Amino acid sequence: MRSRILKFNNAAILAAASVVGKEEYKGPLGEYFDLHDSTDKFGMNTWELAESEMQRLAFNTALSKLSICERSVEALFAGDLLNQCVSSSYGLLDFDIPYFGLYGACSTAIEGIILAAATVNAGYFELAAAVTSSHYCAAERQYRTPIEYGAQRSPTAQWTVTGAGAFMVGRKGEIKITEALPGIVIEKGISDASNMGAAMAPAAVNTILRYFKESEYPLEHFDMIVTGDLGKEGGDILCELLLSEGLDIRKIYRDCGVMIYDRERQDKHAGGSGCGCSATVLASYLCPLIKRRELQNILVVGTGAMMSPSSIQQGQAIPAVAHLVHLSAAEAKKED
Amino acid sequence: MRSRILKFNNAAILAAASVVGKEEYKGPLGEYFDLHDSTDKFGMNTWELAESEMQRLAFNTALSKLSICERSVEALFAGDLLNQCVSSSYGLLDFDIPYFGLYGACSTAIEGIILAAATVNAGYFELAAAVTSSHYCAAERQYRTPIEYGAQRSPTAQWTVTGAGAFMVGRKGEIKITEALPGIVIEKGISDASNMGAAMAPAAVNTILRYFKESEYPLEHFDMIVTGDLGKEGGDILCELLLSEGLDIRKIYRDCGVMIYDRERQDKHAGGSGCGCSATVLASYLCPLIKRRELQNILVVGTGAMMSPSSIQQGQAIPAVAHLVHLSAAEAKKED
Repeated sequence: MRSRILKFNNAAILAAASVVGKEEYKGPLGEYFDLHDSTDKFGMNTWELAESEMQRLAFNTALSKLSICERSVEALFAGDLLNQCVSSSYGLLDFDIPYFGLYGACSTAIEGIILAAATVNAGYFELAAAVTSSHYCAAERQYRTPIEYGAQRSPTAQWTVTGAGAFMVGRKGEIKITEALPGIVIEKGISDASNMGAAMAPAAVNTILRYFKESEYPLEHFDMIVTGDLGKEGGDILCELLLSEGLDIRKIYRDCGVMIYDRERQDKHAGGSGCGCSATVLASYLCPLIKRRELQNILVVGTGAMMSPSSIQQGQAIPAVAHLVHLSAAEAKKED
Repeated sequence: MRSRILKFNNAAILAAASVVGKEEYKGPLGEYFDLHDSTDKFGMNTWELAESEMQRLAFNTALSKLSICERSVEALFAGDLLNQCVSSSYGLLDFDIPYFGLYGACSTAIEGIILAAATVNAGYFELAAAVTSSHYCAAERQYRTPIEYGAQRSPTAQWTVTGAGAFMVGRKGEIKITEALPGIVIEKGISDASNMGAAMAPAAVNTILRYFKESEYPLEHFDMIVTGDLGKEGGDILCELLLSEGLDIRKIYRDCGVMIYDRERQDKHAGGSGCGCSATVLASYLCPLIKRRELQNILVVGTGAMMSPSSIQQGQAIPAVAHLVHLSAAEAKKED
């Protein structure tokens, strides 16, 4: 069987933008985000519309970073956590751009970047965008209970990030998308919706092991392996499971869900989660590090838990998926 | 601006399979479907799991038509109408295949075929599959009211098709995928969730007009223009809006939602809808007609209404999208 790793010679993130809420702005990465609103409402009357507005703002900010108008973007790959992905369909409605709706749960940012890179690299589009979002208040009332109920949270529970990220993918740029490995849906019997890190970790294990089995690069090639939102629990499980397979990634392992909040100062339990988690951390913090060549090669593993409130109520376990991209800093210019 | 029509030289539907419920089997196309279950339950205890099982069966049937095992399929593009697209994530969990989750509402079959064709044509995959489903009982209780309530339906309402379709997309075959035009999300102020045909028609108008503006082919090139699930209401609106723009497609226009049920004998109001509608009609009825060269060139326009029950309750109008593919019969072989 041939390698399942997709290789791209002509795909790069040209610009990325992030929009976050109050808690994310107060976190350790607060200064890096492009926009924030300390009311979490973004001028809207419902949490769902606030989430849509974040997507619109993120995409608009990414457009302005490239100083281009919407007509230059030939495809949108977008999705989110809300039922029927309404944050994306309403949030990006203003833009007259062909739209591919995605559902990859919290892996959506990376799924979108993979499909944007694949289609741009193949020459179908000059420029495509991946956009995603999540909102704590909208997610809580859809997946668990409205925040007004004040329900107590489990120690393994994660905090859905209020945030949106937009990535502009073109042919040549400083943040190269060199490889991608799409994830396989994995379910290992975890049915506790308050422990999604544990449900998603086996999917990340599967993808990372498959990557290193097929890749030409050894572990030492990478400055960082970063997962989307396994949180503290899931990240520990990932490292332990990989160690039992002979792969020790602990020295270079990070998780966006752990990075986005201060574990001591902010009471966020196992860490952040949601489509907005990996999207905002990648857009605001990791992409600039690659651009400045402080990171040369990283693997970003977007993790998604693919259950619904109904499937959990019906006693089903949680399927999960983990999509991987290999991002590389472009070669330094000769004149440097 | 260059044409937005994607051209494929190496993309074809190699096999397609359909699985339906009782009402669809009783309809005019009943004999063409591969599998049906007159209980609509497919051996499962919940409607949601029944829908998942239909996807599994449809994909398995498509595999068996090609006499291949799952390992030959290098990517799945799948999605459905249920919250968080659980029919797909649970239904295709058995298969050890990279998974791209989609949300295109009822346009998902065509969105999946476009992305499968684009990635296969570009050489990323030898073989990819597009799979989707919908289930009347699962959709009713999610979008409207559980069927046990016996709610009266509006004359413009459509009937969600209980069915799943799977399409195997490879490089060369008798049903060529020659062009695709991804849709733009359009919202024209329709907020009546019992009249989705009216909400989706403007999106289909937009896509069809853009296609004929940019295409090298005139209307006469096509034997049929078929929409996914505009139903009687939406189809009439489509034809009228196109006529006002100088394009008269009425002679060759069909709609899968109108075709799948008998308007006189089956009380289905404006016709069928749902992801399973275009998927099963295309897989069971249209693909064989192209294979037998009884249809030479058709345009299939998958239509999707991108609202959620919450967005409707919050008073939002319905955004819609329409994705187009141009399917062509392969040249007759020399020896024929």
